[in-house]
Amino acid sequence: MKRIGVVLSGCGVFDGAEIHESVLTLLAIERAGAQAICFAPDKQQLHVINHLSGETTTEKRNVLVESARIARGKVSALADADPTALDALVLPGGFGVAKNLSDFATQGSDCLIEPELSQLIQKMYKAGKPTGFICIAPALLPKLFKNLTDQPVRLTIGNDSHLAAMIEKAGGQHVICATDAMVVDSQHKVVTTPGYMREDASIAGVAQGIDALVKKVLELT
Amino acid sequence: MKRIGVVLSGCGVFDGAEIHESVLTLLAIERAGAQAICFAPDKQQLHVINHLSGETTTEKRNVLVESARIARGKVSALADADPTALDALVLPGGFGVAKNLSDFATQGSDCLIEPELSQLIQKMYKAGKPTGFICIAPALLPKLFKNLTDQPVRLTIGNDSHLAAMIEKAGGQHVICATDAMVVDSQHKVVTTPGYMREDASIAGVAQGIDALVKKVLELT
Repeated sequence: MKRIGVVLSGCGVFDGAEIHESVLTLLAIERAGAQAICFAPDKQQLHVINHLSGETTTEKRNVLVESARIARGKVSALADADPTALDALVLPGGFGVAKNLSDFATQGSDCLIEPELSQLIQKMYKAGKPTGFICIAPALLPKLFKNLTDQPVRLTIGNDSHLAAMIEKAGGQHVICATDAMVVDSQHKVVTTPGYMREDASIAGVAQGIDALVKKVLELT
Repeated sequence: MKRIGVVLSGCGVFDGAEIHESVLTLLAIERAGAQAICFAPDKQQLHVINHLSGETTTEKRNVLVESARIARGKVSALADADPTALDALVLPGGFGVAKNLSDFATQGSDCLIEPELSQLIQKMYKAGKPTGFICIAPALLPKLFKNLTDQPVRLTIGNDSHLAAMIEKAGGQHVICATDAMVVDSQHKVVTTPGYMREDASIAGVAQGIDALVKKVLELT
């Protein structure tokens, strides 16, 4: 059975991993006959957002502990992820990717990426293993692949022209994509799908896009 | 478009709504061509569990605010649910049902049920509208339907013989059921599926059971 690492970044779209995308990734992996193994960084969240009011609170929460809610307790520290024991890696989206896995939310394309994550992805890439990025997660690709390849990574974050321009400027090649579809970069074995990035997104379309991404990622292993 | 109320009880299997079951309910509703409308009680959670260690923490969290993580912000106070504006109601599981929607976790079958919930379900039943209960939520049925019917409600909570005996003693009729299946009580228009109650449960089976439940609930509207 193929083993797919799933990197979570908390629990909730505004300050952590997008919950629907994370659950639909786990569902797609099991339905495709593979095994999902969840990881998250053991660090404090950038902040905690009240998801009802949208306001920032004074609470402190830990990314690994909150990710355990999505993983029903079965999640390991990202520092312990062994790339030789994984066939592929998938990152669901949510602001946690831009706030806890990197500082993209405040710094944009020239962000710092959590070293545990960048090292893991670099090792996966060098071993010829595929990676999948959902929602906002593809925005990290230009930085992640900067020293790994001369070719631009082909990717999508949906249809946001401002963000697409930022990604192109950082060296990525952006492709507009529907929620239920995906973009495949065969050279770099990178698959991306918009998740909830588009304003017209809804859960059934997001599920379809993630299903396609997971199948393609497995095909590339 | 049919409107199905979804009652959430927090965000996380050990102290709130089971996240997978909740997301899969929202997915099944949209795929079936209906609209999901989320509700949760505006009250403090019984407690907050660290989902990584399993330990109870000293934190305080609000059920409605945490439910908003699953609902991506789109959730209303359960007190505001209007039964005349809903065609059906579904309760995903998780310990939140037994800790925040009732005190079943500490009191068993003779539990107190959140009055906002019991009144809503009674009004739905009297109006001939179907209800669906996932995972541990069916354990509330004997108490919920006590003064509504002389006939035992036919239901499943999977294959837990201890819990099944407790439910039978409280006046319910328990049926053993597979994770990917459901039990239909046509007389009371009540549909139940085990969700994660069985030890052999996994996400694809849970999704199949919830799909079946949602389709049957819609059929009974």
